[in-house]
Amino acid sequence: MGIDPRLLERRLDELYAIGAEPGGGAYRPLYGAAWATAVERVERWLKDAGLKTRRDAVGNLWGRAEGTDNGKSIVTGSHIDTVRHGGRLDGALGIVAGLTAVEALLKEKGKPRRTLEVVAICEEEGSRFATNFWGSRAIIGAIDAPEAEMAEAMRERGLDPARIATAARDDIDTFVELHIEQGAVLESSGGTLAVVSAIVGTVHLELAVTGRSDHAGTTPMDLRLDALAGAAAMVQAVESIAKSLGRPAVATVGKLEVEPDQINVVPGRVVFTVDLRHPDLAGRRALEERVRSLCDTISQERGVRLSIRTLQEKPPVAMHPDVRALLARAAKECGLQTAEMVSGAGHDAQILAARCKVGMLFVPSIGGRSHCPEESTSPKHLELGTQVLVKALELMAY
Amino acid sequence: MGIDPRLLERRLDELYAIGAEPGGGAYRPLYGAAWATAVERVERWLKDAGLKTRRDAVGNLWGRAEGTDNGKSIVTGSHIDTVRHGGRLDGALGIVAGLTAVEALLKEKGKPRRTLEVVAICEEEGSRFATNFWGSRAIIGAIDAPEAEMAEAMRERGLDPARIATAARDDIDTFVELHIEQGAVLESSGGTLAVVSAIVGTVHLELAVTGRSDHAGTTPMDLRLDALAGAAAMVQAVESIAKSLGRPAVATVGKLEVEPDQINVVPGRVVFTVDLRHPDLAGRRALEERVRSLCDTISQERGVRLSIRTLQEKPPVAMHPDVRALLARAAKECGLQTAEMVSGAGHDAQILAARCKVGMLFVPSIGGRSHCPEESTSPKHLELGTQVLVKALELMAY
Repeated sequence: MGIDPRLLERRLDELYAIGAEPGGGAYRPLYGAAWATAVERVERWLKDAGLKTRRDAVGNLWGRAEGTDNGKSIVTGSHIDTVRHGGRLDGALGIVAGLTAVEALLKEKGKPRRTLEVVAICEEEGSRFATNFWGSRAIIGAIDAPEAEMAEAMRERGLDPARIATAARDDIDTFVELHIEQGAVLESSGGTLAVVSAIVGTVHLELAVTGRSDHAGTTPMDLRLDALAGAAAMVQAVESIAKSLGRPAVATVGKLEVEPDQINVVPGRVVFTVDLRHPDLAGRRALEERVRSLCDTISQERGVRLSIRTLQEKPPVAMHPDVRALLARAAKECGLQTAEMVSGAGHDAQILAARCKVGMLFVPSIGGRSHCPEESTSPKHLELGTQVLVKALELMAY
Repeated sequence: MGIDPRLLERRLDELYAIGAEPGGGAYRPLYGAAWATAVERVERWLKDAGLKTRRDAVGNLWGRAEGTDNGKSIVTGSHIDTVRHGGRLDGALGIVAGLTAVEALLKEKGKPRRTLEVVAICEEEGSRFATNFWGSRAIIGAIDAPEAEMAEAMRERGLDPARIATAARDDIDTFVELHIEQGAVLESSGGTLAVVSAIVGTVHLELAVTGRSDHAGTTPMDLRLDALAGAAAMVQAVESIAKSLGRPAVATVGKLEVEPDQINVVPGRVVFTVDLRHPDLAGRRALEERVRSLCDTISQERGVRLSIRTLQEKPPVAMHPDVRALLARAAKECGLQTAEMVSGAGHDAQILAARCKVGMLFVPSIGGRSHCPEESTSPKHLELGTQVLVKALELMAY
């Protein structure tokens, strides 16, 4: 049973054109105009595919093909929002592939035994407010009242913030999502498709190094307490620790701010962030422990003050073993080898795992590029990924 | 012959109160309201001291005591502008001490043989526009037409930009300036007063490191081209090179900017500055050569691209040997030992050296603090520094 790869590509193009930015890429921030247009477009496609649509209280869009038995639903989909200058596939692929797969199944195999649903999740990226996983958190009933500005944005789209709790679902059996890898692991290993074993745990730390701001000309090197020189040693240490632990540990200093940030003044204070990820909790804790300890040693050696604040801490989430096995089987029935891999990025599946079985499929990202206009996957890989998704849904729902 | 130390302190207090900022310190940007008030205040003091005042075409304020012979002038003074949150002494001391010294000389010894002048130089700090040494550059006739915004600021103070060339002087014999050290060398060596031997040469470089921006979760450490990790290694290298060369070499990374500066994105580009100083040209060139070469090696090792731009290059300037000897003699006659030291900061003397003999005296800065509200020198040191200035002016002008 096949899907039409041209239809897949055309739909991806159509979605990518919504919110196109002058500097390249698309931007569809939560509850914005481009976001609303994209949701409408997907709703039309869902209806055309014979699905019954509805929008929940936070704006997640659901398309439903009722099954013959009364069990819980099999759901596929992804998020419809994008980062700034976002690419063509992040989120969009999971929605378009999901609806194209369900459309093909309904057409060829008719009414399913299990209810099949396609979901366009309203937000995952923190695309407009600092609310990552807003859509999936609503589905598991884990959202409190939004901030005033966000509540206003909801009302502008006809959504009532007081009704958020009604978005919660307890009737989902399994959620599967096709996504781009967003890294270069698959490509560099020559793989076609990966079954995700787990989504990494992430810790975000903020390190503040306080030294003493001095005149760059009048202060001999041996009398300085240079906060930036200290921070630079720590940046080096963070990289070395992750490198020495080896894959899959990663550690990144992404933000760094210098005070007073003047060409002729020795920096008195530097604040930087560290993003630490590891798929198992012990590994992630070891990574964090080493970073804290080595940065502490550096600060003591240099006589600068170090304070560390945890901004965020997310545990690793394993994908459900049944779904992992099913996805591998589906791939095999399509004649494809799969490897398992860890997702270094966060996905809605890690939230939904609290209420249902979850699983994910990755297709390769060319050059590992993502969250940018260069984000791309070969048409062949997109087609194969969607075909495996069709097969997996068929195995579960028919 | 003595000066009144209370008068010295009171005048410094009065000047410091002009342009006082809510966050501490004073700010008297060129041609601003506080600047204008300060110039008026100094003009009144000069007149009260019996000096004939005039303002030149860029707003430098001159107070003149005509000598009995017709030779060139002996000038003392400093700049009247300040950095943001500037301290009580930088610039202000040289003006207040200069006028207090000349006032005392005129009172006790009458009309000088050589013409004595006190100058409040309009700008040295780049306090408002990027025009460091604006006042002294006008005095040596080295200014072209100002930018439109600056020309407008001049007109607001009644100054005609078309007349700038008339500020040039070729009748100055010697310029001497009393200044705070702005570093901790004198304090840490227990000295009271230093004669400046030279003002360091400065090079400002801008280094741009280009790697590749990647997802912090999905990109294994071994597949990254992290611009910040590369820049951090260079920041470390810059510090190590200056430390290994030892005093008086200094090297500072003061500004550093990360792109895209997001917590979960591997930095794709980092731009930072390097400030390199050394009192002799060969030393400064060696410093720059090593920095360029080691940063280049680091960029090659890491596969990131490095481009280096020279933003500014100022040669070291030696103080005139006659003036150095005279200042040492004046100190000795006051019963003080002096050491010679290099100035790590820039001063108007380095510009004026192109047209006249120059020399400088430093008093200690407590804790080496400067360009901040904590900038301070003990009253005893301020008094002794001013007394030596009186003696030096007496030796030259009477």
